Amino acid sequence: MKRIAFLLLAVVTLGGIAAYIAHASGQSDGDSSPIYGVKIPAGYRDWKVIAVAQLLVPGKADQLRAQLGNEIAIKAFKEKTLPFPDGAIIAAIHWTRVPSEDNNKVLAGPFPGAQSSVVGSPVNVQFMVKDSKKYAATGGWGFADFKDGKPGDKTLHETCFPCHTPVKDRDYVFTHYAP
Amino acid sequence: MKRIAFLLLAVVTLGGIAAYIAHASGQSDGDSSPIYGVKIPAGYRDWKVIAVAQLLVPGKADQLRAQLGNEIAIKAFKEKTLPFPDGAIIAAIHWTRVPSEDNNKVLAGPFPGAQSSVVGSPVNVQFMVKDSKKYAATGGWGFADFKDGKPGDKTLHETCFPCHTPVKDRDYVFTHYAP
Repeated sequence: MKRIAFLLLAVVTLGGIAAYIAHASGQSDGDSSPIYGVKIPAGYRDWKVIAVAQLLVPGKADQLRAQLGNEIAIKAFKEKTLPFPDGAIIAAIHWTRVPSEDNNKVLAGPFPGAQSSVVGSPVNVQFMVKDSKKYAATGGWGFADFKDGKPGDKTLHETCFPCHTPVKDRDYVFTHYAP
Repeated sequence: MKRIAFLLLAVVTLGGIAAYIAHASGQSDGDSSPIYGVKIPAGYRDWKVIAVAQLLVPGKADQLRAQLGNEIAIKAFKEKTLPFPDGAIIAAIHWTRVPSEDNNKVLAGPFPGAQSSVVGSPVNVQFMVKDSKKYAATGGWGFADFKDGKPGDKTLHETCFPCHTPVKDRDYVFTHYAP
């Protein structure tokens, strides 16, 4: 019994050391993004809609997307406040795009040739968190990309800020508020 | 002065009579749907997301869509409650789908051939309002279709319920809650 307890303790301790090393090296600690340390914000799925979008990369990605914002972000979008105030968070949810046979059957009557697409499975969720002091080196934004609740690696997160620099004049935000 | 007041009174009265006749005949009174009398629910643009979708009818429609729900509808979707309880309202916002040259320029580097689409202008907004007594003849749902804030005509609204009957087993609701 004592031997089992010791083994358990050893495993837990080694796990803790491994997690510490990973975190200190800028890698993810399992629930926050590398480089930025952004965690999945609670309740983001229930945030208000900024806009929806679609992305097709032939052979690689075929997605339907929704961009949501917390209250601070939505207020800034509505009032066209730039730069976004600290505390603003934008969430981008990406799903696979799949044809809806159910919808197409119904639509075929009134709209011959209609092609309805709906969301399939979740692909990833991305976040931009505004903190002008903490993230001063990256336009005031911290970035995160999660897949199945797990953040992507450091290499992936190194691409976030450079990708957003072309829209520096919109405070690094691609999405426009949908009318 | 008295003559002007009389003329104003006459105009207002005639306007009122015209509105009453239009309403009694099942036509729209300008801000509620014919047949069902559904008005645009306050604040629906800020409701939570049920799902997003796309519709292509070659030569006729090319849209990005979002389905939102009020609190009663969202709770029912999350808990898979069928039929939907009275008070549930589902909003379907439809926008034109337009290519985003801005996004494509940025995406072309890492993702050659990427085609990003975003929302263009609003097309219409549709609502389903659950009231099992008031709308007993149409599965408990009242329907509405608005364009630029104005409801469509009676002929259009006569198509709503028949179109939704193929999904009677899902309480006449096409949209599934997006994961």
